[in-house]
Amino acid sequence: MTSLQPGDTIGILGGGQLGRMMALAAARYGLHVHIYDPEGAPPAAEVSAQQTRASYTDETALKAFARACDVITYEFENIPRESLDILQNLATLRPDIASLETSQDRLIEKRFLEDLGLAVAPYAPVDRSDDIAAAHEALGRETILKTRRLGYDGKGQASLKGDEDCFAAWRSIGEKSAVLETRVPFIAEISAIIVRAGNGTAASYDIPVNTHKSGILDTSAVGCFTDFKVPADLARQAQTAAIRIADALGHVGVLTAEFFVTETHALLVNEIAPRVHNSGHWTMDACLCDQFDNHVRAIAGWPLGSTDRHSDALMTNLIGEDENRYDQFLSASDVQVHLYGKTEARKGRKMGHITQIAPR
Amino acid sequence: MTSLQPGDTIGILGGGQLGRMMALAAARYGLHVHIYDPEGAPPAAEVSAQQTRASYTDETALKAFARACDVITYEFENIPRESLDILQNLATLRPDIASLETSQDRLIEKRFLEDLGLAVAPYAPVDRSDDIAAAHEALGRETILKTRRLGYDGKGQASLKGDEDCFAAWRSIGEKSAVLETRVPFIAEISAIIVRAGNGTAASYDIPVNTHKSGILDTSAVGCFTDFKVPADLARQAQTAAIRIADALGHVGVLTAEFFVTETHALLVNEIAPRVHNSGHWTMDACLCDQFDNHVRAIAGWPLGSTDRHSDALMTNLIGEDENRYDQFLSASDVQVHLYGKTEARKGRKMGHITQIAPR
Repeated sequence: MTSLQPGDTIGILGGGQLGRMMALAAARYGLHVHIYDPEGAPPAAEVSAQQTRASYTDETALKAFARACDVITYEFENIPRESLDILQNLATLRPDIASLETSQDRLIEKRFLEDLGLAVAPYAPVDRSDDIAAAHEALGRETILKTRRLGYDGKGQASLKGDEDCFAAWRSIGEKSAVLETRVPFIAEISAIIVRAGNGTAASYDIPVNTHKSGILDTSAVGCFTDFKVPADLARQAQTAAIRIADALGHVGVLTAEFFVTETHALLVNEIAPRVHNSGHWTMDACLCDQFDNHVRAIAGWPLGSTDRHSDALMTNLIGEDENRYDQFLSASDVQVHLYGKTEARKGRKMGHITQIAPR
Repeated sequence: MTSLQPGDTIGILGGGQLGRMMALAAARYGLHVHIYDPEGAPPAAEVSAQQTRASYTDETALKAFARACDVITYEFENIPRESLDILQNLATLRPDIASLETSQDRLIEKRFLEDLGLAVAPYAPVDRSDDIAAAHEALGRETILKTRRLGYDGKGQASLKGDEDCFAAWRSIGEKSAVLETRVPFIAEISAIIVRAGNGTAASYDIPVNTHKSGILDTSAVGCFTDFKVPADLARQAQTAAIRIADALGHVGVLTAEFFVTETHALLVNEIAPRVHNSGHWTMDACLCDQFDNHVRAIAGWPLGSTDRHSDALMTNLIGEDENRYDQFLSASDVQVHLYGKTEARKGRKMGHITQIAPR
């Protein structure tokens, strides 16, 4: 596998906060960053050497971008297949198409997970509104309809309870191919953030316990900051599952698997993200090498860094207007503040996050 | 005192590695950075939103820069007084001229320290080669000749032993106004890195023990990584001295004072730097808020962050060709690697640093 040298260029598809934090990690290692984003001044661009502003389907721009980069990675998984093919023909894409294709489509992802012997919540594919009623009945009448593609932060989802109108749910998700899932009662949501190098070695961060608000991640906690203590065997099981997923995909870089912990302490995979993840932001302040550092190391073909945690940590997202209270967060002792440089604080928009740490 | 808001712009005079690490800290807090540097592609520029490429004496460029920034800071102290006046008339300079003027000139600095009642090594001002012989004799015949201005990393210095040729030493430092100092026997070199906010509150990092090679900082260590354990009273004394210096200057931002520890455990101030310092780089990996974070907070008019240390740490500079062994450093567990993105590894040039950490 090709290895980068200091001074080489990492291309990042997407210039949002994940791209920005990747760019800052790349800078730490003396690497240049080239952001590809259709927006004019995305958060990642101002901390990067170069930006290509173009649509994800602009063949000419994609080709020029690929030729300018030594390795290409991405901050989100919804990149058109045709664009990935163009990039992969001209440059090294890490993680590669297998990781993206599998996680772009909920149905493909669930079947892939089942093929690996990993448990997921009971589900049924839905291609027409007429499919929903029977599936809803069969799945226990407490279900969630989720689009197969392009959903994030609770978008593209609709809850169904009892005899609710299936057609309304279908319309609310845009009448798109979907998956109907049983709403599984769970006692905790956790995630495994792992990193896999090109030579197959992998390392895991400790498992955070996550809470959500309105479908958006609210907090991720490790150590003393969470009441639910993840049992060691469950933690190992989650980490092993995430590494098996990465192995099966031939994934290079960070990969995140989200799990529900059921009342009987069984693990159900909720979804996978073939990338750095919001639930891993606490690693920035509680680990020597955070998820962005290790993602950069992996895609650069470099040895992985330590995933050890030196502190307990509580990460809280700053959503929308939360950012305006930055002064209050800056005043709290043992809290680090991360703001993403977004100009407009739209409702539901991730503007930054804060991390409180405590000695272990 | 004016406070910045996220999205405001920090101007940095100097685009080297210190400017680069300041820029990365500013990015963490959602602030924009504008670098002022005569070089074309200095390390800090590619992680900053803007660069002005101009001489430090270019009045037009300085004025435009001042108008474009909400606050201006600097990464080095050798900025012409006239330039500082231009900037200060149009913008907020933090730290301000008092901090710069005092530390730009070794003689002024030593007299300032003595006025504060702080001990320095015996010295004598030297303005002509004829001054040297008698002073050398009076100072104990083990002396160092140091230019008053523009010295760094051992540059502008010459050692004199016994009956050495005073005129050769004078020529080697460029026949410039200088200070002749007694070479004091010391058992350790330490530094106090403190940060002072505009409202006068101050905070101190733990005291690192420093070693040098060829006049350039080699290592800075805290905790288990240093054999010399700084006694608690000596540490407090050094921190208090640095804060007194900052108070006297009305300094806003990080300030570093370097000390010799004599055999009798007395402290002599070696020199002060009115800025973030190489001997504080370990804070990046061993503290929640590092020296760059706290410098940004202070000059932004924000509350100071924690200076607590979660880990023991050993920082080692990568000088010149050292950088080529990056692969070896990346392979070491519990080591973080920082490379500055410099293209040319000249002899004696600081290319990066590594930090090893250990749980406390």
